[in-house]
Amino acid sequence: MQANEQKRTEISTLGEFGLIEHLTKKFAIKNASTFKGIGDDAAVIGKSDPLTVVSTDLLVEGIHFDLMYFPLKHLGYKSVVVNLSDIYAMNAVPKQITMSIAISNRFSVEALEELYEGIRAACKNYDVDLVGGDTTSSNKGLIISVTAIGEGEKDKLAYRNGAKPGDLICITGDVGAAYLGLQIMEREKQLYLSNPGIQPDLEEQKYLVGRQLKPEARRDMVDVFRKAKLVPTAMIDVSDGVSSDLMHICRQSGVGAFIEETGIPVHEEAKLMALKFNLDPITCALNGGEDYELLFTINPKDLDKTKLLPDVFIMGEITEKDEGIKFHTNGGRIVDLEAQGWKHF
Amino acid sequence: MQANEQKRTEISTLGEFGLIEHLTKKFAIKNASTFKGIGDDAAVIGKSDPLTVVSTDLLVEGIHFDLMYFPLKHLGYKSVVVNLSDIYAMNAVPKQITMSIAISNRFSVEALEELYEGIRAACKNYDVDLVGGDTTSSNKGLIISVTAIGEGEKDKLAYRNGAKPGDLICITGDVGAAYLGLQIMEREKQLYLSNPGIQPDLEEQKYLVGRQLKPEARRDMVDVFRKAKLVPTAMIDVSDGVSSDLMHICRQSGVGAFIEETGIPVHEEAKLMALKFNLDPITCALNGGEDYELLFTINPKDLDKTKLLPDVFIMGEITEKDEGIKFHTNGGRIVDLEAQGWKHF
Repeated sequence: MQANEQKRTEISTLGEFGLIEHLTKKFAIKNASTFKGIGDDAAVIGKSDPLTVVSTDLLVEGIHFDLMYFPLKHLGYKSVVVNLSDIYAMNAVPKQITMSIAISNRFSVEALEELYEGIRAACKNYDVDLVGGDTTSSNKGLIISVTAIGEGEKDKLAYRNGAKPGDLICITGDVGAAYLGLQIMEREKQLYLSNPGIQPDLEEQKYLVGRQLKPEARRDMVDVFRKAKLVPTAMIDVSDGVSSDLMHICRQSGVGAFIEETGIPVHEEAKLMALKFNLDPITCALNGGEDYELLFTINPKDLDKTKLLPDVFIMGEITEKDEGIKFHTNGGRIVDLEAQGWKHF
Repeated sequence: MQANEQKRTEISTLGEFGLIEHLTKKFAIKNASTFKGIGDDAAVIGKSDPLTVVSTDLLVEGIHFDLMYFPLKHLGYKSVVVNLSDIYAMNAVPKQITMSIAISNRFSVEALEELYEGIRAACKNYDVDLVGGDTTSSNKGLIISVTAIGEGEKDKLAYRNGAKPGDLICITGDVGAAYLGLQIMEREKQLYLSNPGIQPDLEEQKYLVGRQLKPEARRDMVDVFRKAKLVPTAMIDVSDGVSSDLMHICRQSGVGAFIEETGIPVHEEAKLMALKFNLDPITCALNGGEDYELLFTINPKDLDKTKLLPDVFIMGEITEKDEGIKFHTNGGRIVDLEAQGWKHF
């Protein structure tokens, strides 16, 4: 009954970020209380200090998670944590979440209890209150929508657009492990499908599988920054991958960057597993995503403070925009950094 | 690979509201800034006046809307409006929304432009800013998640739990029309499926179809209440149906109620169309839902103020809990009010 479309442009021609930009470019901001709209880890609203920070995520079964190997309790936990991570990435503190789920009648009450057990554990660990949501049915598996709300002091918020040439690029922990954890589980799934009698043994890969199934957000860093009286000039959490997320900072700050291969922390188990899978460990580290470490930039005058911080690795430096975004290999080559990230479309 | 469940309780045994209660009963509130958690139209958070009010909705293709007859532009508009309606139902003013969508590659960029055109029109009409969201792919049609954020003065917020025996039950407009609009479109869909050559003529049913396809939220009432210096003792928006929504107020306020058949506003076109469909107009009005009128209760001392308000119909009265929730028919019978509402499970 709807008219046939005259013209058809495929979504894939724009990509996820291009699509959001395209669809929202005509929207105007009207309210004085809208401090920062679309385009950061979270929106910032309010009139008085502290400001309110809001982030939202939509997770769809079969796209973002596979219930063949993702236990519901872990899924509940992770779906909260990844949203809180966006709030920490603003150098703010999450206080509340809302959680909406759509479920088919394939799920039992007991299965949902598992999911909510994980949600509750995350709320407890991160001192966050579940304040609302919506529960509805789905004709299509499980859909989870989480909104996290937090507080951030106006002069301490870290946006994506504040990086300046000369700033140091830092990261709070090793990257690539979550991606390799996912590869392990995908492999086990294939083995299981071909022979359901085989019981997977994931104990040996506990670290990698844990990074995928039970990530933690870097709540501690907001405290660390406060105590060190340090405010990152820009910050983002590593959800899409170091390359892709660094590019967000560069694009929004209007700068270039380089990172050094030696500066990228990769866990020993991740290196070994990458080789087992015939993957380049550094490619996994740069493009893997879902590590939920914080990637941030600091003013070089804060270098001494930064050196004293626990768990902070300096990966590279922000440069002028026309220098591009580069990767310095151990072998001394300089190559363009490419963002592969996740391509859902 | 997941362990088989020992026990399986069907979701349908709990129902939507029972399910939410069951899943969230163990959750504790920790933050001082959590003013009102689960169980109202919106959560209320913050430390200073005005407080922040947050509501969220999840809409799934095939459950909440049918793209066979729901134009994408109208869908975008409606998905914003129904969320804003929840904020107005708190006697608060929405200021921002976030919008997340999951889409399959069945949708073109042009189709999404239509959707966002509707979202933008709603933002413009209601002076609300789109501040964030998430766009992802779906293996299963269109999924929309909206979160609305607003401001409400602490002593003016209207919760569901404030109704007292003796309070008058009011509604801001006619009910049942949106449901009949849906029936018309369902019938046209069936006709179209059996003979795609037939072009539907919906002009004659413009009012009813409009109530379904392009509902408006009662933004004006928040102004009206303010000017009249009137604060409803309880308020909810009619999304599930008058019966179901009145029952939410009664359950949460710990009261009973009666409503009079003569007090229920039904549009002439709704009455005629109900009869055409062999439906009882009053059943449609009580159980139809999606009218997005405001259902509220007022202290009888405010009766004189209320009589002067435009568009307000007095439907009945709040009673003691043990008197139950009753319906007084025109014929003089007193029957139990039953909430049929929407049963998605």
